[in-house]
Amino acid sequence: MPIDIDKARAETPGCEKVLHFNNAGAALMPARVIDAVKGHTDLEAMIGGYEAAERVGESSNEVTALYDSIAQLINCNRHEVAVVENATVAWCQAFYGLSATFEPGDRILTAEAEYSSNYIAYLQTAKKTGCVVEVVPSDETGQLSVAALENMIDDRVKLISVTHVPTNGGLVNPAAEIGRVARNAGIPYLLDACQSVGQMPMDVDAIGCDILTVTGRKYLRGPRGTGFLYIGGEVMNRFEPPFLDNHAARWTTPDTYELRPDARRFENWEFNIAALVGLDEAIRYALEWGLDAIHERVNHLADTLRGQLAATPGVTVRDLGAETCGIVTFTVDGRTSPEIRHGLAEHAINVTDSTIFSTRLDMQRRDLESVVRASVHYYNTENEIERFMDALSAVIKGK
Amino acid sequence: MPIDIDKARAETPGCEKVLHFNNAGAALMPARVIDAVKGHTDLEAMIGGYEAAERVGESSNEVTALYDSIAQLINCNRHEVAVVENATVAWCQAFYGLSATFEPGDRILTAEAEYSSNYIAYLQTAKKTGCVVEVVPSDETGQLSVAALENMIDDRVKLISVTHVPTNGGLVNPAAEIGRVARNAGIPYLLDACQSVGQMPMDVDAIGCDILTVTGRKYLRGPRGTGFLYIGGEVMNRFEPPFLDNHAARWTTPDTYELRPDARRFENWEFNIAALVGLDEAIRYALEWGLDAIHERVNHLADTLRGQLAATPGVTVRDLGAETCGIVTFTVDGRTSPEIRHGLAEHAINVTDSTIFSTRLDMQRRDLESVVRASVHYYNTENEIERFMDALSAVIKGK
Repeated sequence: MPIDIDKARAETPGCEKVLHFNNAGAALMPARVIDAVKGHTDLEAMIGGYEAAERVGESSNEVTALYDSIAQLINCNRHEVAVVENATVAWCQAFYGLSATFEPGDRILTAEAEYSSNYIAYLQTAKKTGCVVEVVPSDETGQLSVAALENMIDDRVKLISVTHVPTNGGLVNPAAEIGRVARNAGIPYLLDACQSVGQMPMDVDAIGCDILTVTGRKYLRGPRGTGFLYIGGEVMNRFEPPFLDNHAARWTTPDTYELRPDARRFENWEFNIAALVGLDEAIRYALEWGLDAIHERVNHLADTLRGQLAATPGVTVRDLGAETCGIVTFTVDGRTSPEIRHGLAEHAINVTDSTIFSTRLDMQRRDLESVVRASVHYYNTENEIERFMDALSAVIKGK
Repeated sequence: MPIDIDKARAETPGCEKVLHFNNAGAALMPARVIDAVKGHTDLEAMIGGYEAAERVGESSNEVTALYDSIAQLINCNRHEVAVVENATVAWCQAFYGLSATFEPGDRILTAEAEYSSNYIAYLQTAKKTGCVVEVVPSDETGQLSVAALENMIDDRVKLISVTHVPTNGGLVNPAAEIGRVARNAGIPYLLDACQSVGQMPMDVDAIGCDILTVTGRKYLRGPRGTGFLYIGGEVMNRFEPPFLDNHAARWTTPDTYELRPDARRFENWEFNIAALVGLDEAIRYALEWGLDAIHERVNHLADTLRGQLAATPGVTVRDLGAETCGIVTFTVDGRTSPEIRHGLAEHAINVTDSTIFSTRLDMQRRDLESVVRASVHYYNTENEIERFMDALSAVIKGK
């Protein structure tokens, strides 16, 4: 069923205030999410922070329903989910734990448009363990070349780690094809799905990843400072989480501890429960609209925007890939990306800019210093795209 | 100036609803903090999560004023502060980074009442690096024996790591005396101040610790899911943070990165900004009351409660130490701690219980399975203590 846009906008208070094309930064929260966060904050204020948590969880440090919502969203078991502060923490808890087992000469394979945070962690780990980081070339469309990946596989490859939707362009890497290669070779596969979950259907089983990391604030429309980790049991049991506390493990005798049996061993005890109540609401809201319907709408809007930008003199669309998504990037002749961003902000239009410090290998190869990033969501409209194009035109003309 | 209790209670909406003696769990937030959190959440909803952050920070991922508030609170430089999700994250980023440099036979010295989360991390590190964990005996009052600590110092001691106020009793470990020993010997000193900051003055320079870890939700009365790390420059530069991202470091060439010059290298990019705005408000609120005044009031109330409990037949106060604080623990003959906690909850009284899984060495030595923990704050009253004692008496009698 197509999305009822009027309803979606009526349920998004920010729509009245801004034209928000920064959904890959942090999307506008729906009213239900805002109310959930504020409502739980009030409850904490009135009865106490631990006591409020006991109303939404089985203990004073959890939101029980959230694990079921996440399991439904990405098609996994609730015991395979850890809820953490954000996608970076999720990614680091998994990556640094697994990579601590690497030996000199072990290989990490990644993609050209890999996100800087991940790449910096690879470099640090290479320094520590002597493993090597290798970049799988892109194919002619700009996505990771699955054929090249297959050719690079040998028994020294200990991890395939890829960003699903890179931060600096519409590109969607071929996650399931990569998964097929990883499964055939028995190599752990870490998918950074920070910018894909919430704008398209996600099925960890169909994709075949062992580890998936997600943030709440982007396409899921949840609160800032929320995220989660999916980790399959077999890979989970190969290593200990790099950080442990008395939630991840139990102090059983003076000299021993036991890890939790489930993925929550990657969590720590303390949470911002109000934000997690909001994340649960955001996920259930997305599931109600349906990820297929969201995906279709987001792609339609992004294609429309991309087409209009491509037809504008002086504007160059910078998106790559055989499959694109809600992120649209471009440059403007003779103008820097921050100039365009600030110019649009004066028209109450939110976009961001993505620099070489975020995706160095890809940007350097394409000789780009930065791009303007406009990321649309299902609650955006064709009318907003029109207003955006008018404002961009005014900014370019220096009005 | 003594605290105006009526004002403090009028500014704490929860006071009307509950008798809250769980301030060492999560204290009741003042109205200013609640308003700050909800106000920023509304701003995010109306103009976008990144865009709202730019109103309170120099970029879309910080609350600029918070670093100054923290620096004032603990007497350090703002560049020595990292803001993180909670005290556990603060502690882990420092401890696991430093301990990665340990070699077989290196020694970690800690105290008998050390918190389980920290101890589990010591055990994991010992397994990984071959270092050894040694417990400094307590003196006759129950606090860490500074004389014993001095006797244990040699050049294999690579860390002194102590919980300032243990979770299971009134005890305040002699932080500054430990600092003197650490400084004289040139040994890094990590102080877990999770339960002390906010109930007493804190001066990292006077204490002489190199690393201090703090949570927002306890005696600081801030939101859940907030915390910070203090780390002095000399120790900071001895090791890299165990987790890095593009906020902690900058991807400078394809094969290199550079760490941030300040303590914020221990942070990661994404925050729940609304919670941090609340934490800033909570710290400024505490500073306005004055930590000396808070300390005096908390100790007065705790001493009153402790005295009345000690005089009650069948009740045994379990606090240790030469110096006590706002945490009061006790057991009741023939009744488990959860029974007492649940019984008090029926009278709208919040306490918690602290089990052997939190402080195994200390509890085992004292043959305790769990204790009831009542933790008071300055906004509590003598009248509440009276109501508490009446309710406890009713619970004990089975009413």
